[in-house]
Amino acid sequence: MTKKGVLLVVSGPSGAGKGTVIRDAMERDKSFYYSVSATTRAPRAGEIDRVNYHFVTRERFEEFIRDGAVVEHTEYSQNYYGTLRSETEGKCDDGFNVILEIEVDGASQIKKKFPEAVSVMILPPDFKTLENRLRSRGTNTEEDIKRRLDRAREEMKFYGDYDYLIVNYDNEVRAAADELISIVKCEHMRTLRNPDFPAEFFNLNNN
Amino acid sequence: MTKKGVLLVVSGPSGAGKGTVIRDAMERDKSFYYSVSATTRAPRAGEIDRVNYHFVTRERFEEFIRDGAVVEHTEYSQNYYGTLRSETEGKCDDGFNVILEIEVDGASQIKKKFPEAVSVMILPPDFKTLENRLRSRGTNTEEDIKRRLDRAREEMKFYGDYDYLIVNYDNEVRAAADELISIVKCEHMRTLRNPDFPAEFFNLNNN
Repeated sequence: MTKKGVLLVVSGPSGAGKGTVIRDAMERDKSFYYSVSATTRAPRAGEIDRVNYHFVTRERFEEFIRDGAVVEHTEYSQNYYGTLRSETEGKCDDGFNVILEIEVDGASQIKKKFPEAVSVMILPPDFKTLENRLRSRGTNTEEDIKRRLDRAREEMKFYGDYDYLIVNYDNEVRAAADELISIVKCEHMRTLRNPDFPAEFFNLNNN
Repeated sequence: MTKKGVLLVVSGPSGAGKGTVIRDAMERDKSFYYSVSATTRAPRAGEIDRVNYHFVTRERFEEFIRDGAVVEHTEYSQNYYGTLRSETEGKCDDGFNVILEIEVDGASQIKKKFPEAVSVMILPPDFKTLENRLRSRGTNTEEDIKRRLDRAREEMKFYGDYDYLIVNYDNEVRAAADELISIVKCEHMRTLRNPDFPAEFFNLNNN
């Protein structure tokens, strides 16, 4: 029997470097599966359906909600964003450690629905570093930066709701990715995730 | 401020290889401290006070119990065995990850007193392997082996009370020790063990 994968919720403010850390971990550990979200917003230039998002109509998304086909969702700028059940439970059952890169509100919906899910907050070492990173991107307007920093302050209020903290120091992406990989390995060692071990332990003896 | 170490309870049947795994982990990770138990039994040839055990009188041990100086204890073959508070809380406060190699009953006392303690059961892959290991030691009588196997069956009933399972495969001590080291590293990443992070995160910004 395939061992069930871990459902891994990863959050963190814009500028924390979540995406880079996740990519680095996934390149080295093939047990990860990145859950592709569903959205009703229109694809941007270069975005590919089922790779960047599952792009669906508003009617379809509301059908998903009614049918319980999305396990968490939120509305933002008049568009729905959510996680498909098939991208989570389905993939975990296949043995993948499924990464959900979602916001704090979605994370709390997931933890309620799947108490065995593991949540990780990826943060820069301090607020100043976060600001520096947002500025150094160069693509953000001053208003944009201010909005993201305000949002980060809000997100930090949910810190205690997360199981693990990964501090993503400047130029230490590899170390942060190693921590993400370690967390999943350790979670697989939990007796809770190995309830059948004692039975197997004794059974082998009878063969 | 020194970060508090993890209080790590390690149990497992005789023949699981606990001692070897712990030694290998301690040789490579200097953050570990091995808690030396107190006992009222007489030292055996070669045993050194404060290295193998804190050898104390029965009166002294009962004083420890009354004063709360032992955090768990048990009586076995008319002798007391127990863990000193100074070997646990004290060393954790100094930043050490403290290993308590204790039996299932002591483990449950520790978990009640220190809910933040982490418990690990080290087991061979199956019962047959356990038996083979006990036999291959050569130093055990048949009666001894039977007694240890019976005891192992009893200990397995407490499997679900432990947080983590480490399977110690034949000739894979290093891998099991790596898992022990990993568990402690991951536990240090828990937000619960880093309650001050958000305050520090914002404070640094004001400097």
